Amino acid sequence: MAAFEDSLVQRAISAFSDARESLLAEYFELLRFRSISSEAEFKPELDLCAEWVRSRLDRAGLKTEVWQGVGHPVVFGEFRSSSSNAPTVLLYNHYDVQPVDPLELWHSPPFEPRLDGDTVYARGAADNKGQLFYVMSAVRWMLKEFGELPLNVKLIIEGEEEIGSPSLPKLFDKYGDRLQADSLLIVDSGSHSDSVPAVTLGCRGIVTMTVTLTGSKSDLHSGLAGGAVYNPNRALAEILGKLYDSDGRIAVPGFYDRVLEPSAEERAALFLNLTDDQVEQLFSAKATGGEKGVGALERTWLRPTLEINGVAGGYSGDGFKTVIPARSIAKLSCRLVPDQNPAEIAGLVKSHLESLTPSGVAINVDVHPGSGAPVRSRPDSRTAQALAAALNQLSPRPAAFTLSGGSIPIVEELARAANAEVVMMGFGLPDDDIHAPNERFSVSRLQKGFAAIVETLRNLRA
Amino acid sequence: MAAFEDSLVQRAISAFSDARESLLAEYFELLRFRSISSEAEFKPELDLCAEWVRSRLDRAGLKTEVWQGVGHPVVFGEFRSSSSNAPTVLLYNHYDVQPVDPLELWHSPPFEPRLDGDTVYARGAADNKGQLFYVMSAVRWMLKEFGELPLNVKLIIEGEEEIGSPSLPKLFDKYGDRLQADSLLIVDSGSHSDSVPAVTLGCRGIVTMTVTLTGSKSDLHSGLAGGAVYNPNRALAEILGKLYDSDGRIAVPGFYDRVLEPSAEERAALFLNLTDDQVEQLFSAKATGGEKGVGALERTWLRPTLEINGVAGGYSGDGFKTVIPARSIAKLSCRLVPDQNPAEIAGLVKSHLESLTPSGVAINVDVHPGSGAPVRSRPDSRTAQALAAALNQLSPRPAAFTLSGGSIPIVEELARAANAEVVMMGFGLPDDDIHAPNERFSVSRLQKGFAAIVETLRNLRA
Repeated sequence: MAAFEDSLVQRAISAFSDARESLLAEYFELLRFRSISSEAEFKPELDLCAEWVRSRLDRAGLKTEVWQGVGHPVVFGEFRSSSSNAPTVLLYNHYDVQPVDPLELWHSPPFEPRLDGDTVYARGAADNKGQLFYVMSAVRWMLKEFGELPLNVKLIIEGEEEIGSPSLPKLFDKYGDRLQADSLLIVDSGSHSDSVPAVTLGCRGIVTMTVTLTGSKSDLHSGLAGGAVYNPNRALAEILGKLYDSDGRIAVPGFYDRVLEPSAEERAALFLNLTDDQVEQLFSAKATGGEKGVGALERTWLRPTLEINGVAGGYSGDGFKTVIPARSIAKLSCRLVPDQNPAEIAGLVKSHLESLTPSGVAINVDVHPGSGAPVRSRPDSRTAQALAAALNQLSPRPAAFTLSGGSIPIVEELARAANAEVVMMGFGLPDDDIHAPNERFSVSRLQKGFAAIVETLRNLRA
Repeated sequence: MAAFEDSLVQRAISAFSDARESLLAEYFELLRFRSISSEAEFKPELDLCAEWVRSRLDRAGLKTEVWQGVGHPVVFGEFRSSSSNAPTVLLYNHYDVQPVDPLELWHSPPFEPRLDGDTVYARGAADNKGQLFYVMSAVRWMLKEFGELPLNVKLIIEGEEEIGSPSLPKLFDKYGDRLQADSLLIVDSGSHSDSVPAVTLGCRGIVTMTVTLTGSKSDLHSGLAGGAVYNPNRALAEILGKLYDSDGRIAVPGFYDRVLEPSAEERAALFLNLTDDQVEQLFSAKATGGEKGVGALERTWLRPTLEINGVAGGYSGDGFKTVIPARSIAKLSCRLVPDQNPAEIAGLVKSHLESLTPSGVAINVDVHPGSGAPVRSRPDSRTAQALAAALNQLSPRPAAFTLSGGSIPIVEELARAANAEVVMMGFGLPDDDIHAPNERFSVSRLQKGFAAIVETLRNLRA
């Protein structure tokens, strides 16, 4: 279609400006829903919010469905191109938000959006209603402007992201056919700086476990029993202390076997430019963890970890108690990179922990449900390049290809269900205070997002 | 004096029987004082109890004093023999008791003593009012019976034992001359079995510390920062895990330098007969801690320890939090044997911990006040032999020379202040439920204690 041969960025920017007032009014409607997914009392608001989203997609010309899982509904919308070989793009967002505590730190009520200059304050302004709203608005504008599109567009908008997406993967069996796509855009992230937009190619996987070491039936006196019995705290320290070698590598046999080294091209494309000093500033901590000889940023993006997220055993309050605890525990998590498998890694860690356990102490390793596989798309993939080309028109500096050290299990699960090339994107910034009081987004980023979606979809046409 | 040439055991036993009713009435008076030293509201009861003790000693013919420290008063009583070369025996007891919680588990009110057969139920029945009462009664009976004694007898009875004796050592400067003695009997212990009385030759010393490891200003996200920073929990495990070598010995350089090996005679005299299986039964735990190749009981009596009494860092509750804690802590204690010095050992441990701390993590080692030096008297000492000879007349089986793995700092401090040979003794049993609901003692043990004190004092005469 001829209309799609030239960039749509300037047209989209103008269209947003022209409709600014009505778009903001509608955005504020969306922000007013108290769609806090973690609190049962707000269930009716989540239902209303889902219906609001569905009806807007319906009016925009998409065929819509509402999928009911165990919790809050999932909204699905689809536009089918009349072109026979049109590629398919699936966009993911969520309409649920975090709780608002501590309420007293908000400068205005979290569900009464407030515009101050370019900034909009409200719970969900950024995460994820702002990003959801520019996606919905961009698709609606394209359909209104062109009537027909040279690609199929699907939107999936869930209501349980902030509680770990428990329902969505369970719906894939039933609705998997609807999800099939060539490209998947997870529109829920951002970049470190407004001037450098990001194409986030993936995130690390995760698997977590609780380790319990038991020595005696009940706590013992460290004078009477000290020296006789094997203190579980000692066993804990000895076992956990042997999980790393002197080079900071994880000493679990087989742990690195499936770790994919990025190719020279992949590495060159990635924005690995943060120095260790900059990473230290970011975290207010020295960057001395992880593997020696590997840069700090690279260690959080391209290398797996095993972290001890919690230890507890015996008395640790003020003063002192001369106790040998009956048991002590540790909470461990592994962050995984391609092609590590959560269940396999959990098994390796469990076996290694068991092999290190001394006589006289019993070990139990409980691997938690809710693991997630790692995701790392290639920077030269069609989807990543389409997004990067759009972003490059919206910023004086070229888009950065980044990764996230965090884990969003739904990314890999949805990509797998959709058989799609996945890329994460968004216009969030570190100081948006998502999950915190006075969450904010900006109208200018709403506009950029709008234009970025339009242009990315154009770039992804057949 | 001729009256002291033959054993006094049978006379003492008969005297106790004859006076049983009046003795029990008086014992119950003592038990009714709510002398809980840890609770400020009971301060008046402690003062009343101290005065009750003082007046009884006064009436018995001792010269009495009340010493006021920072907390509850110390009662001191003294009988001076007219013999010019009479040796001096100092006896230590305490009149304060533990709290009574949980009150609902008591079958009768804790401060209303109840006699059921041979058993007396009350808080303090055993610890330490029962043992205090037979000491007071024995000395009173001897003075009444003989008028003169071939030895000097001193009693020191404090009111802060259950809160760690904070005042008593501070009074030694002022009252040290009163305390000078040849023998010191700490009458606050017991034996494993009623049929085998114990001469407890000492206990281990103790020094405790809190170790704090700090990595970042505030908690970090284990996805974003994981691999970059050095997790304090990892540092904690690595450091603590290196405190023991593969033979279970403490790997702190110099830790064992001053440890005295008992002589062959000493070892032969000690009741080291408990097998590892018996120790395991005692603690409901495998006896796999401590040094390899050393028996379990010996490890608690004759060998020092370094125990990790508490560890805490990050999240350890239900579920999981993907946190890298800003700091993690450990509580460590060392139990010491002669001639280890608490301050020196603390310094060695602190230096070793510091030397193990990785770059990027800051360590702080806070050595707590209230350490205690170890005590180990010789089984062939005059005091130990005098007590053993008395006990051997009271039991079908000979007295056992034992040690305690626990630590009672006042033992060494008082022995040093008194320049005395010290021995610990008493008729407590493991199932007396001291410090617990339904604490109990028996009239027959009160009688044995009475006779044991009489005969031990006789044995200690010039």
